[in-house]
Amino acid sequence: MQLKKDYETVRQRTESICAPLKTEDYVVQPVADVSPPKWHLGHTTWFFETFLLMPNLEGYTEFDPQYNFVFNSYYESVGSRVIRTDRGNLSRPAVEDIMRYRRHVDDAMYRFLEQEHTPEIQALITLGLNHEEQHQELLYTDIKYILGHNPLMPAYDPDKQSARSAVDNTSWLHMKAGIYEIGFAGEGFCFDNELSRHKVYLGDYSISTSLVSNAEYLEFIQSGGYRDFRYWHAEGWDWVKNNQVTAPMYWYLIDGRWMYYTWQGLQPLATDAPLCHISYYEAAAYASWKGMRLPTEAEWEAAAPQLSWGLRWEWTESAYLPYPGFTKAPGAIGEYNGKFMVSQMVLRGASEVTPPGHSRITYRNFFHPPLRWQFTGIRLAK
Amino acid sequence: MQLKKDYETVRQRTESICAPLKTEDYVVQPVADVSPPKWHLGHTTWFFETFLLMPNLEGYTEFDPQYNFVFNSYYESVGSRVIRTDRGNLSRPAVEDIMRYRRHVDDAMYRFLEQEHTPEIQALITLGLNHEEQHQELLYTDIKYILGHNPLMPAYDPDKQSARSAVDNTSWLHMKAGIYEIGFAGEGFCFDNELSRHKVYLGDYSISTSLVSNAEYLEFIQSGGYRDFRYWHAEGWDWVKNNQVTAPMYWYLIDGRWMYYTWQGLQPLATDAPLCHISYYEAAAYASWKGMRLPTEAEWEAAAPQLSWGLRWEWTESAYLPYPGFTKAPGAIGEYNGKFMVSQMVLRGASEVTPPGHSRITYRNFFHPPLRWQFTGIRLAK
Amino acid sequence: MQLKKDYETVRQRTESICAPLKTEDYVVQPVADVSPPKWHLGHTTWFFETFLLMPNLEGYTEFDPQYNFVFNSYYESVGSRVIRTDRGNLSRPAVEDIMRYRRHVDDAMYRFLEQEHTPEIQALITLGLNHEEQHQELLYTDIKYILGHNPLMPAYDPDKQSARSAVDNTSWLHMKAGIYEIGFAGEGFCFDNELSRHKVYLGDYSISTSLVSNAEYLEFIQSGGYRDFRYWHAEGWDWVKNNQVTAPMYWYLIDGRWMYYTWQGLQPLATDAPLCHISYYEAAAYASWKGMRLPTEAEWEAAAPQLSWGLRWEWTESAYLPYPGFTKAPGAIGEYNGKFMVSQMVLRGASEVTPPGHSRITYRNFFHPPLRWQFTGIRLAK
Amino acid sequence: MQLKKDYETVRQRTESICAPLKTEDYVVQPVADVSPPKWHLGHTTWFFETFLLMPNLEGYTEFDPQYNFVFNSYYESVGSRVIRTDRGNLSRPAVEDIMRYRRHVDDAMYRFLEQEHTPEIQALITLGLNHEEQHQELLYTDIKYILGHNPLMPAYDPDKQSARSAVDNTSWLHMKAGIYEIGFAGEGFCFDNELSRHKVYLGDYSISTSLVSNAEYLEFIQSGGYRDFRYWHAEGWDWVKNNQVTAPMYWYLIDGRWMYYTWQGLQPLATDAPLCHISYYEAAAYASWKGMRLPTEAEWEAAAPQLSWGLRWEWTESAYLPYPGFTKAPGAIGEYNGKFMVSQMVLRGASEVTPPGHSRITYRNFFHPPLRWQFTGIRLAK
Repeated sequence: MQLKKDYETVRQRTESICAPLKTEDYVVQPVADVSPPKWHLGHTTWFFETFLLMPNLEGYTEFDPQYNFVFNSYYESVGSRVIRTDRGNLSRPAVEDIMRYRRHVDDAMYRFLEQEHTPEIQALITLGLNHEEQHQELLYTDIKYILGHNPLMPAYDPDKQSARSAVDNTSWLHMKAGIYEIGFAGEGFCFDNELSRHKVYLGDYSISTSLVSNAEYLEFIQSGGYRDFRYWHAEGWDWVKNNQVTAPMYWYLIDGRWMYYTWQGLQPLATDAPLCHISYYEAAAYASWKGMRLPTEAEWEAAAPQLSWGLRWEWTESAYLPYPGFTKAPGAIGEYNGKFMVSQMVLRGASEVTPPGHSRITYRNFFHPPLRWQFTGIRLAK
Repeated sequence: MQLKKDYETVRQRTESICAPLKTEDYVVQPVADVSPPKWHLGHTTWFFETFLLMPNLEGYTEFDPQYNFVFNSYYESVGSRVIRTDRGNLSRPAVEDIMRYRRHVDDAMYRFLEQEHTPEIQALITLGLNHEEQHQELLYTDIKYILGHNPLMPAYDPDKQSARSAVDNTSWLHMKAGIYEIGFAGEGFCFDNELSRHKVYLGDYSISTSLVSNAEYLEFIQSGGYRDFRYWHAEGWDWVKNNQVTAPMYWYLIDGRWMYYTWQGLQPLATDAPLCHISYYEAAAYASWKGMRLPTEAEWEAAAPQLSWGLRWEWTESAYLPYPGFTKAPGAIGEYNGKFMVSQMVLRGASEVTPPGHSRITYRNFFHPPLRWQFTGIRLAK
Repeated sequence: MQLKKDYETVRQRTESICAPLKTEDYVVQPVADVSPPKWHLGHTTWFFETFLLMPNLEGYTEFDPQYNFVFNSYYESVGSRVIRTDRGNLSRPAVEDIMRYRRHVDDAMYRFLEQEHTPEIQALITLGLNHEEQHQELLYTDIKYILGHNPLMPAYDPDKQSARSAVDNTSWLHMKAGIYEIGFAGEGFCFDNELSRHKVYLGDYSISTSLVSNAEYLEFIQSGGYRDFRYWHAEGWDWVKNNQVTAPMYWYLIDGRWMYYTWQGLQPLATDAPLCHISYYEAAAYASWKGMRLPTEAEWEAAAPQLSWGLRWEWTESAYLPYPGFTKAPGAIGEYNGKFMVSQMVLRGASEVTPPGHSRITYRNFFHPPLRWQFTGIRLAK
Repeated sequence: MQLKKDYETVRQRTESICAPLKTEDYVVQPVADVSPPKWHLGHTTWFFETFLLMPNLEGYTEFDPQYNFVFNSYYESVGSRVIRTDRGNLSRPAVEDIMRYRRHVDDAMYRFLEQEHTPEIQALITLGLNHEEQHQELLYTDIKYILGHNPLMPAYDPDKQSARSAVDNTSWLHMKAGIYEIGFAGEGFCFDNELSRHKVYLGDYSISTSLVSNAEYLEFIQSGGYRDFRYWHAEGWDWVKNNQVTAPMYWYLIDGRWMYYTWQGLQPLATDAPLCHISYYEAAAYASWKGMRLPTEAEWEAAAPQLSWGLRWEWTESAYLPYPGFTKAPGAIGEYNGKFMVSQMVLRGASEVTPPGHSRITYRNFFHPPLRWQFTGIRLAK
């Protein structure tokens, strides 16, 4: 039973990400975009309970009817829910209660996974696992935010290294004009927003073989990039001024030396590491300062088989919009992606905290332009 | 001198739009997106003074050095400026002072237009005229907002009719898959955001030959469209709930009868008129309710030679992003379009208040998704 | 008919205050506390129409039923109203319409004033006149704000002098401990908040015979008063920091020289003039810096027969609360004062823009602690 | 050593209040006025460390220099601090770290309390104990808020009863006009805001011998008190409408039955219990509806020797202002009370969660008018 094995792997990995935390770390929500770790633990469990066990497992007993209110994220179809900014106000259910909830649902899921299932049910289980993997990445980013914004700046794990692979000498991959195909096709799982595979026409372009490094970005800072409106979108410039932004998130200039908050606490900035934790505005401003641009998502996907990627989610110049022929699934699952297709930008690739095997070349990640608590970076095009 | 004649026509048209106003109407700014009419009168004049007369007309005397602070809209290159939400707090310069300012600049421009000019200067004059035409449309939309949100709902002009041309029987124009070219090419003026002309691949699609009518949109309202989250983007649904939206702007249900604020004051809703004053969220929700979608801007442009358009700015499913090869002009003029290319949606066509001859098939208008004080409408695709 | 003569005097004085304005100046509302001058002109008229003519003058025709919505200030009993922050968004009714409204109501009032009236009606007319006098002072303060916050800083009237009477040598009036009586008694008009006259016990105290001068306040500024939290209430210190306050309103340090916006435009600060335009927080901080305090309103009233006062509203250390035995009148008039008796501080005296004869020794003015667009000053006690 | 014994009692009582909590409950801050319990535990400890041990105990080693930043509440003299609304974002220091901090400081304090001390030091220790007692009451109110606003509404302690002593038949205590003395005098501890004892003149008045009961307040609700503006201050009426207030805090109308959140979870409302958890606005509106008023703090204090009090903090009609002769202590301790003497109302008495022996007849508690998470009630006067 591959699915059962996958289920076990995914569920355990979630809990192992949380293992270094103190109980208090599971509770807080310093900003609206960050969710408390215990909420992620409950919400991913609620997904299996709500969409698989409740409708399909005979004799299943709901763990606690009030949990639907607490752990529903954004599914309007499934009733009212705690508003997002209130998640950090909830001390209960306690972590131990949520762990009992996980055990309760896991036990039922193991029984359920013993049964024969229709392809639809199997697809839904796979969706639940991919969903939990997405929350594994969010757990990492949210935990980093919680600890990294605490005045004590505690380490998450003194042994966990950050991606620091030396950046290769940058070169340019030249792509010929013509019709390309993008979007998912073939076997295996994909999200609905990767469908359907379709043709796009691309003109000649070049795309960098490497990500922008911290050292390169430092040049932008030191040449006054954050003080020159010419490189910025108008709303990006407002963002810089209103938030007094002078560097990427987690960068601190202390006694003339750039420091960076890592899994191991505050460390000297690794200049050869790929730049991380920047907003779309910063990515676009940096590209403008270089006299270049960001790739579109189609350009990225067409070139990606020949590129090395996976350390940073790479901001593209594409807005998050439906592909030709996109349709929403009926019911609550249809709320998964389509309703977010406005006002966000697409990111491609994967990051050092993306679960292994989770992403693929057609994967479409998306965030609002000012956000930067994700592991985001820059690849240039021209 | 065609340019001189054009200058005279455009400048006079601006003032004739304002002719029905009372002095008080020139002053107010009920919301941030609406500017006081006297600000438009001054700002369009400031454009000619700042970018043409000051650098190029020998012996020109600036009308008042403080006006730069008052009438600069968003040009960071040209110094500090009154913040947008404060425009309605300025009782001075008075309307008569601004009219003297217009006379002063017009006199100098007429002298200037007698001279021989380089193509660059000529292009800048043409840009100034197109800029003023854009503000003519904004004058109409802002005046409608100012009068239409006054509790007395005064008429703008008792003789001015709204577009009411009966909507033809809807039919579908079928377009074949293939490579199309979009973007401006050839002689004459265009904005930088229409450049450069480039190829796009489009799959098979169909596009409606007519705009959605008030009667059709009423069906959406009456079937509960504003109360069913399934048709809405997540941020659109928040917008509906936070603003308690139940109908397009300027629609009022009074004693069971739908009324609509027009140039002639409050009138019974013309059911056969093309729908107007809706947000992108409403356009997308209506399309979703119909089981269809909005066209992309490339689909729109490829089909438009065979369509009738011009009564409504038509929301597309395309975000406002740079075309391949887009570059910003150096200096202040480079701030015209490029820095707004994030978080907005493209509208195509023109509206009943667009100056005659101002728009064209490659024209790219753009607004944020929730805005609806412009003359916006819906054309469906599938 | 004294009342008729008073009516004529008061109504004309209101219009003469507005005489130097341009039409545009009547319209704007730069902050919520400031009302557009045309609103004051309409609202004072609405008071007579609503509370006197409509219920009492046979055959009176309401000028325009929609005006109640526009010109009601805060009377919940009299229907819904334009919310305060929207007053500056109303271009209509135009100034000329409001002037016709004033003529219409004045004509009717003159007829009404010919008749015999009960004491209750007479009292209501007198209240209407005192109400309009209060708005005369607000007209001055609001006009100063509108013109003084315009980047062009136009003069209101080049011939209108500010109070500049040299401050006498300060001396101290010593008051003996004992029972004093405060509150209004006797003939003539008073507001309900001055009632009833009652005994208070005061300990020994001393009160300054003069107001704090600009020169004295400059010492506070120059000794770092705005940068030292020790002199400030906690919420005052937040106010200083959030608003970056460094001087009284209308003070500008230009090229090392203190300037002050007056009726005649920007002028060098008159150091011997009594300090003006300060918040309660600043008054209390100054007193604390001097090692003294502000008087209570009872101390002020007990001493005032022996003091010269009338140039500045003097902040006291008393909160605005009901006197013993205070009762609200039934009906809308009962909303005049009582419902504001929380979260405000009492000011005593009068200012250079208070109508002659309007104030008296028992008069209780009141504002919220951070406000300073009124002509407020400081008298010390110890 | 009485002081040492007192120290032990107070410190242990704080921890016993927290004993029923889960670790997660120590962390959250649902609204700005509520602090996380672990913050109270740390802050009260920080007070002893900062004001006693650091300056006075030779050889004392600061537990962690970063704790000053975390646990300073509002003392500007003692450096920068975590802003109040961010306290709930801090998962570290963990509860166990704070408990070690308490042990560290307690050990040092026990050594310190063995020594001989000046009266000044003794007074400061006593102040520290009274300070911690104030936080004990805040711990109760904040814990009730945290658990009572959780959708699961967990009980704090299934055995802890709420005050439910039957309200006596109400009678009126009549007080004769004359001079009374209020304020603290004599031996023992008092806060600086109770000084100095001084004379006040009071007219004849009557004060209720009992607090308003839930049953009495229900009559106000059922007669439409929350829907009739006439009983409310203007800002109270805005508060009712903006927050859609229809009952005291923790009251829920479920299936036609009034329920109330208690230490034991949600329970049927005890109609004979004294009303609790109301704002000043509600207290004043109720009094107005009864045709009565709230007592002033002087009236309360003059009558209190003959009254039973201690179940509810009783809102008075007095603003929180300095007594005659009030002076702030020099240094950080001077920030204890004086800087809050604006915009708040005085409450007298004590509540069911005030530590035994903490309050006294001259005690002046104070809160902003809209707050109601404290155990507040109403006593009428006339």
